[in-house]
Amino acid sequence: MQQALLEAQAAAEREEVPVGAIIVDADGAIIARAGNQVLADHDPTAHAELLAIRAAAHTLGSERLTGCDLYVTLEPCPMCAQAISFARIRRLYYGAADPKGGGVDNGPSLYNQPTCHHEPEVYGGMRETEAAALLQHFFQSRRQTS
Amino acid sequence: MQQALLEAQAAAEREEVPVGAIIVDADGAIIARAGNQVLADHDPTAHAELLAIRAAAHTLGSERLTGCDLYVTLEPCPMCAQAISFARIRRLYYGAADPKGGGVDNGPSLYNQPTCHHEPEVYGGMRETEAAALLQHFFQSRRQTS
Repeated sequence: MQQALLEAQAAAEREEVPVGAIIVDADGAIIARAGNQVLADHDPTAHAELLAIRAAAHTLGSERLTGCDLYVTLEPCPMCAQAISFARIRRLYYGAADPKGGGVDNGPSLYNQPTCHHEPEVYGGMRETEAAALLQHFFQSRRQTS
Repeated sequence: MQQALLEAQAAAEREEVPVGAIIVDADGAIIARAGNQVLADHDPTAHAELLAIRAAAHTLGSERLTGCDLYVTLEPCPMCAQAISFARIRRLYYGAADPKGGGVDNGPSLYNQPTCHHEPEVYGGMRETEAAALLQHFFQSRRQTS
Protein backbone atom coordinates (compact mmCIF):
# COMPACT_ATOMS: atom_id res chain seq x y z
CA MET A 1 0.00 0.00 0.00
CA GLN A 2 2.99 2.29 0.51
CA GLN A 3 3.63 2.17 -3.23
CA ALA A 4 -0.03 2.91 -3.99
CA LEU A 5 0.13 5.92 -1.65
CA LEU A 6 3.18 7.18 -3.56
CA GLU A 7 1.20 6.91 -6.81
CA ALA A 8 -1.68 8.84 -5.20
CA GLN A 9 0.74 11.55 -4.05
CA ALA A 10 2.16 11.80 -7.57
CA ALA A 11 -1.39 12.13 -8.97
CA ALA A 12 -2.05 15.01 -6.56
CA GLU A 13 1.06 16.77 -7.81
CA ARG A 14 -0.35 16.50 -11.35
CA GLU A 15 -3.63 18.03 -10.01
CA GLU A 16 -5.50 14.76 -10.55
CA VAL A 17 -7.72 13.26 -7.84
CA PRO A 18 -5.11 11.54 -5.64
CA VAL A 19 -5.78 7.84 -5.98
CA GLY A 20 -3.04 5.31 -6.66
CA ALA A 21 -3.05 1.58 -7.42
CA ILE A 22 -0.53 -1.25 -7.57
CA ILE A 23 -0.88 -4.80 -8.86
CA VAL A 24 1.36 -7.56 -7.57
CA ASP A 25 1.70 -11.06 -8.96
CA ALA A 26 1.41 -14.27 -6.96
CA ASP A 27 5.04 -13.90 -5.85
CA GLY A 28 4.44 -10.37 -4.54
CA ALA A 29 6.33 -8.62 -7.34
CA ILE A 30 4.83 -5.31 -8.52
CA ILE A 31 3.78 -5.74 -12.17
CA ALA A 32 1.81 -2.51 -12.64
CA ARG A 33 1.41 0.85 -10.93
CA ALA A 34 -0.70 3.87 -11.78
CA GLY A 35 -2.30 7.03 -10.48
CA ASN A 36 -5.41 8.75 -11.82
CA GLN A 37 -4.88 10.37 -15.22
CA VAL A 38 -8.41 11.46 -16.14
CA LEU A 39 -7.48 15.08 -16.87
CA ALA A 40 -4.08 14.48 -18.47
CA ASP A 41 -5.43 11.77 -20.80
CA HIS A 42 -8.84 13.40 -21.44
CA ASP A 43 -10.21 9.98 -20.51
CA PRO A 44 -13.08 9.52 -18.03
CA THR A 45 -12.07 5.87 -17.60
CA ALA A 46 -8.44 6.62 -16.64
CA HIS A 47 -8.81 5.73 -12.98
CA ALA A 48 -5.74 4.29 -11.25
CA GLU A 49 -7.21 0.78 -11.00
CA LEU A 50 -8.24 0.59 -14.67
CA LEU A 51 -4.87 1.85 -15.84
CA ALA A 52 -3.04 -0.64 -13.61
CA ILE A 53 -5.23 -3.54 -14.79
CA ARG A 54 -4.66 -2.66 -18.43
CA ALA A 55 -0.91 -2.36 -17.89
CA ALA A 56 -0.69 -5.66 -15.99
CA ALA A 57 -2.75 -7.51 -18.58
CA HIS A 58 -0.54 -6.10 -21.32
CA THR A 59 2.60 -7.20 -19.44
CA LEU A 60 1.27 -10.71 -18.83
CA GLY A 61 -0.24 -11.02 -22.32
CA SER A 62 -3.55 -12.17 -20.85
CA GLU A 63 -6.88 -10.54 -20.11
CA ARG A 64 -6.98 -12.52 -16.86
CA LEU A 65 -4.77 -11.62 -13.90
CA THR A 66 -5.43 -14.82 -12.02
CA GLY A 67 -3.52 -14.96 -8.73
CA CYS A 68 -2.71 -11.24 -8.78
CA ASP A 69 -3.66 -8.81 -6.01
CA LEU A 70 -4.58 -5.13 -6.34
CA TYR A 71 -3.85 -2.41 -3.78
CA VAL A 72 -5.64 0.92 -4.16
CA THR A 73 -5.83 3.92 -1.85
CA LEU A 74 -9.60 4.48 -2.24
CA GLU A 75 -12.53 2.07 -2.40
CA PRO A 76 -13.04 1.34 -6.11
CA CYS A 77 -15.98 2.91 -7.95
CA PRO A 78 -18.42 0.55 -9.72
CA MET A 79 -16.50 0.82 -13.00
CA CYS A 80 -13.23 -0.23 -11.41
CA ALA A 81 -14.84 -2.80 -9.11
CA GLN A 82 -16.34 -4.56 -12.13
CA ALA A 83 -13.04 -4.39 -14.03
CA ILE A 84 -11.31 -5.99 -11.01
CA SER A 85 -13.85 -8.81 -11.20
CA PHE A 86 -13.41 -9.26 -14.98
CA ALA A 87 -9.62 -9.37 -14.49
CA ARG A 88 -10.01 -12.20 -11.94
CA ILE A 89 -8.00 -10.31 -9.31
CA ARG A 90 -7.53 -12.60 -6.29
CA ARG A 91 -7.44 -10.07 -3.45
CA LEU A 92 -8.43 -6.41 -3.34
CA TYR A 93 -6.89 -4.23 -0.62
CA TYR A 94 -8.19 -0.68 -0.36
CA GLY A 95 -7.48 2.33 1.85
CA ALA A 96 -10.29 4.82 2.46
CA ALA A 97 -13.95 3.90 2.11
CA ASP A 98 -15.97 6.01 -0.36
CA PRO A 99 -19.60 6.38 0.74
CA LYS A 100 -20.31 8.89 -2.07
CA GLY A 101 -18.90 6.92 -5.00
CA GLY A 102 -17.72 3.48 -3.95
CA GLY A 103 -19.00 0.30 -5.54
CA VAL A 104 -17.59 -2.44 -3.30
CA ASP A 105 -18.87 -1.83 0.25
CA ASN A 106 -21.03 1.16 -0.66
CA GLY A 107 -23.65 1.92 -3.33
CA PRO A 108 -24.32 -1.14 -5.48
CA SER A 109 -22.04 -3.51 -3.47
CA LEU A 110 -21.18 -5.06 -6.81
CA TYR A 111 -19.64 -8.27 -5.53
CA ASN A 112 -22.89 -9.20 -3.82
CA GLN A 113 -24.90 -8.87 -7.06
CA PRO A 114 -26.08 -11.94 -8.99
CA THR A 115 -24.50 -10.39 -12.11
CA CYS A 116 -21.00 -10.67 -10.55
CA HIS A 117 -19.26 -13.88 -11.63
CA HIS A 118 -15.91 -13.48 -9.87
CA GLU A 119 -15.61 -11.96 -6.43
CA PRO A 120 -12.16 -11.07 -5.08
CA GLU A 121 -11.38 -11.30 -1.39
CA VAL A 122 -11.78 -7.73 -0.10
CA TYR A 123 -9.77 -6.07 2.68
CA GLY A 124 -10.72 -2.43 3.30
CA GLY A 125 -9.32 0.21 5.65
CA MET A 126 -5.63 -0.42 4.93
CA ARG A 127 -3.70 2.77 5.84
CA GLU A 128 -7.05 4.47 5.59
CA THR A 129 -6.04 7.60 7.51
CA GLU A 130 -3.19 8.48 5.13
CA ALA A 131 -5.23 7.69 2.02
CA ALA A 132 -8.15 9.80 3.24
CA ALA A 133 -5.87 12.67 4.31
CA LEU A 134 -4.45 12.92 0.78
CA LEU A 135 -7.97 13.23 -0.66
CA GLN A 136 -9.16 15.70 1.99
CA HIS A 137 -6.14 17.92 1.48
CA PHE A 138 -6.62 17.83 -2.30
CA PHE A 139 -10.27 18.83 -2.21
CA GLN A 140 -9.68 21.50 0.46
CA SER A 141 -6.96 23.06 -1.72
CA ARG A 142 -9.29 23.08 -4.72
CA ARG A 143 -12.08 24.76 -2.79
CA GLN A 144 -9.68 27.46 -1.62
CA THR A 145 -8.48 28.21 -5.15
CA SER A 146 -11.86 28.07 -6.89
CA MET B 1 -28.02 1.21 -34.05
CA GLN B 2 -27.37 -0.19 -37.52
CA GLN B 3 -23.76 0.99 -37.25
CA ALA B 4 -23.41 -0.56 -33.79
CA LEU B 5 -24.73 -3.86 -35.18
CA LEU B 6 -22.09 -3.73 -37.90
CA GLU B 7 -19.41 -3.28 -35.23
CA ALA B 8 -20.84 -6.25 -33.32
CA GLN B 9 -20.76 -8.37 -36.49
CA ALA B 10 -17.13 -7.38 -37.09
CA ALA B 11 -16.29 -8.37 -33.49
CA ALA B 12 -17.85 -11.79 -34.07
CA GLU B 13 -15.67 -12.24 -37.14
CA ARG B 14 -12.63 -11.58 -34.91
CA GLU B 15 -13.98 -14.24 -32.48
CA GLU B 16 -14.72 -11.61 -29.86
CA VAL B 17 -18.05 -11.48 -28.03
CA PRO B 18 -20.20 -9.63 -30.58
CA VAL B 19 -21.05 -6.32 -29.02
CA GLY B 20 -20.68 -3.02 -30.87
CA ALA B 21 -21.04 0.60 -29.83
CA ILE B 22 -21.30 3.99 -31.50
CA ILE B 23 -21.15 7.49 -30.05
CA VAL B 24 -22.81 10.41 -31.82
CA ASP B 25 -22.45 14.08 -31.01
CA ALA B 26 -25.30 16.51 -30.46
CA ASP B 27 -25.66 16.93 -34.24
CA GLY B 28 -25.99 13.17 -34.79
CA ALA B 29 -22.53 12.73 -36.35
CA ILE B 30 -20.70 9.53 -35.41
CA ILE B 31 -17.55 10.48 -33.47
CA ALA B 32 -16.49 7.02 -32.25
CA ARG B 33 -17.21 3.38 -33.04
CA ALA B 34 -15.88 0.17 -31.56
CA GLY B 35 -16.47 -3.53 -31.08
CA ASN B 36 -15.19 -5.71 -28.26
CA GLN B 37 -11.44 -6.26 -28.34
CA VAL B 38 -10.84 -8.07 -25.05
CA LEU B 39 -8.96 -10.99 -26.59
CA ALA B 40 -7.07 -9.10 -29.28
CA ASP B 41 -5.86 -6.43 -26.85
CA HIS B 42 -5.35 -8.76 -23.85
CA ASP B 43 -7.43 -6.20 -21.99
CA PRO B 44 -10.36 -7.16 -19.75
CA THR B 45 -11.65 -3.59 -19.96
CA ALA B 46 -11.76 -3.47 -23.79
CA HIS B 47 -15.54 -3.59 -24.06
CA ALA B 48 -17.09 -1.78 -27.02
CA GLU B 49 -18.56 1.00 -24.87
CA LEU B 50 -15.32 1.74 -23.01
CA LEU B 51 -13.31 1.81 -26.22
CA ALA B 52 -15.83 4.13 -27.87
CA ILE B 53 -15.90 6.47 -24.86
CA ARG B 54 -12.11 6.67 -24.75
CA ALA B 55 -11.93 7.33 -28.50
CA ALA B 56 -14.64 10.01 -28.39
CA ALA B 57 -13.03 11.74 -25.40
CA HIS B 58 -9.70 11.71 -27.19
CA THR B 59 -11.30 13.18 -30.32
CA LEU B 60 -13.09 15.93 -28.41
CA GLY B 61 -10.11 16.61 -26.12
CA SER B 62 -12.35 16.39 -23.06
CA GLU B 63 -13.15 13.73 -20.45
CA ARG B 64 -16.79 14.81 -20.65
CA LEU B 65 -18.97 13.90 -23.63
CA THR B 66 -21.77 16.26 -22.68
CA GLY B 67 -24.60 16.16 -25.23
CA CYS B 68 -23.38 12.95 -26.85
CA ASP B 69 -25.45 9.76 -27.15
CA LEU B 70 -24.24 6.16 -27.07
CA TYR B 71 -25.75 3.25 -28.99
CA VAL B 72 -24.72 -0.29 -27.98
CA THR B 73 -26.09 -3.66 -29.03
CA LEU B 74 -26.17 -5.16 -25.50
CA GLU B 75 -27.18 -3.73 -22.14
CA PRO B 76 -23.95 -2.33 -20.63
CA CYS B 77 -22.25 -4.18 -17.79
CA PRO B 78 -21.65 -2.28 -14.53
CA MET B 79 -18.15 -1.23 -15.66
CA CYS B 80 -19.44 0.32 -18.87
CA ALA B 81 -22.60 1.71 -17.27
CA GLN B 82 -20.49 3.63 -14.76
CA ALA B 83 -18.11 4.83 -17.48
CA ILE B 84 -21.14 6.13 -19.43
CA SER B 85 -22.18 8.07 -16.34
CA PHE B 86 -18.68 9.48 -15.77
CA ALA B 87 -18.56 10.56 -19.44
CA ARG B 88 -21.83 12.48 -18.99
CA ILE B 89 -23.46 10.69 -21.94
CA ARG B 90 -26.87 12.24 -22.56
CA ARG B 91 -28.84 9.24 -23.89
CA LEU B 92 -28.05 5.55 -23.82
CA TYR B 93 -29.74 3.33 -26.41
CA TYR B 94 -29.18 -0.41 -26.06
CA GLY B 95 -30.31 -3.52 -27.95
CA ALA B 96 -30.62 -6.79 -26.03
CA ALA B 97 -31.13 -6.89 -22.26
CA ASP B 98 -28.53 -8.85 -20.28
CA PRO B 99 -30.04 -10.50 -17.19
CA LYS B 100 -26.78 -12.35 -16.45
CA GLY B 101 -24.33 -9.47 -16.66
CA GLY B 102 -26.14 -6.17 -17.22
CA GLY B 103 -25.76 -3.21 -14.91
CA VAL B 104 -28.42 -0.78 -16.11
CA ASP B 105 -31.79 -2.53 -15.86
CA ASN B 106 -30.43 -5.74 -14.31
CA GLY B 107 -28.13 -6.55 -11.41
CA PRO B 108 -27.08 -3.41 -9.55
CA SER B 109 -29.26 -1.01 -11.61
CA LEU B 110 -26.43 1.46 -11.30
CA TYR B 111 -28.31 4.57 -12.30
CA ASN B 112 -30.70 4.11 -9.40
CA GLN B 113 -27.88 3.99 -6.84
CA PRO B 114 -27.13 6.95 -4.56
CA THR B 115 -23.48 6.70 -5.69
CA CYS B 116 -24.46 7.59 -9.28
CA HIS B 117 -24.10 11.33 -9.94
CA HIS B 118 -25.11 11.49 -13.61
CA GLU B 119 -27.89 9.37 -15.05
CA PRO B 120 -28.34 9.23 -18.83
CA GLU B 121 -31.77 8.80 -20.36
CA VAL B 122 -32.03 5.05 -21.11
CA TYR B 123 -33.85 3.44 -24.03
CA GLY B 124 -33.57 -0.37 -24.13
CA GLY B 125 -34.78 -2.97 -26.60
CA MET B 126 -33.70 -1.15 -29.77
CA ARG B 127 -33.33 -3.78 -32.56
CA GLU B 128 -33.15 -6.26 -29.72
CA THR B 129 -33.90 -9.34 -31.85
CA GLU B 130 -30.96 -8.79 -34.19
CA ALA B 131 -28.57 -7.91 -31.37
CA ALA B 132 -29.57 -10.99 -29.38
CA ALA B 133 -29.39 -13.25 -32.45
CA LEU B 134 -25.76 -12.25 -33.02
CA LEU B 135 -24.89 -13.20 -29.45
CA GLN B 136 -26.86 -16.45 -29.51
CA HIS B 137 -25.27 -17.56 -32.76
CA PHE B 138 -21.80 -16.71 -31.42
CA PHE B 139 -22.18 -18.70 -28.21
CA GLN B 140 -23.83 -21.64 -30.01
CA SER B 141 -20.89 -21.81 -32.41
CA ARG B 142 -18.42 -21.78 -29.52
CA ARG B 143 -20.23 -24.61 -27.73
CA GLN B 144 -20.16 -26.70 -30.89
CA THR B 145 -16.43 -26.24 -31.39
CA SER B 146 -15.35 -26.63 -27.76
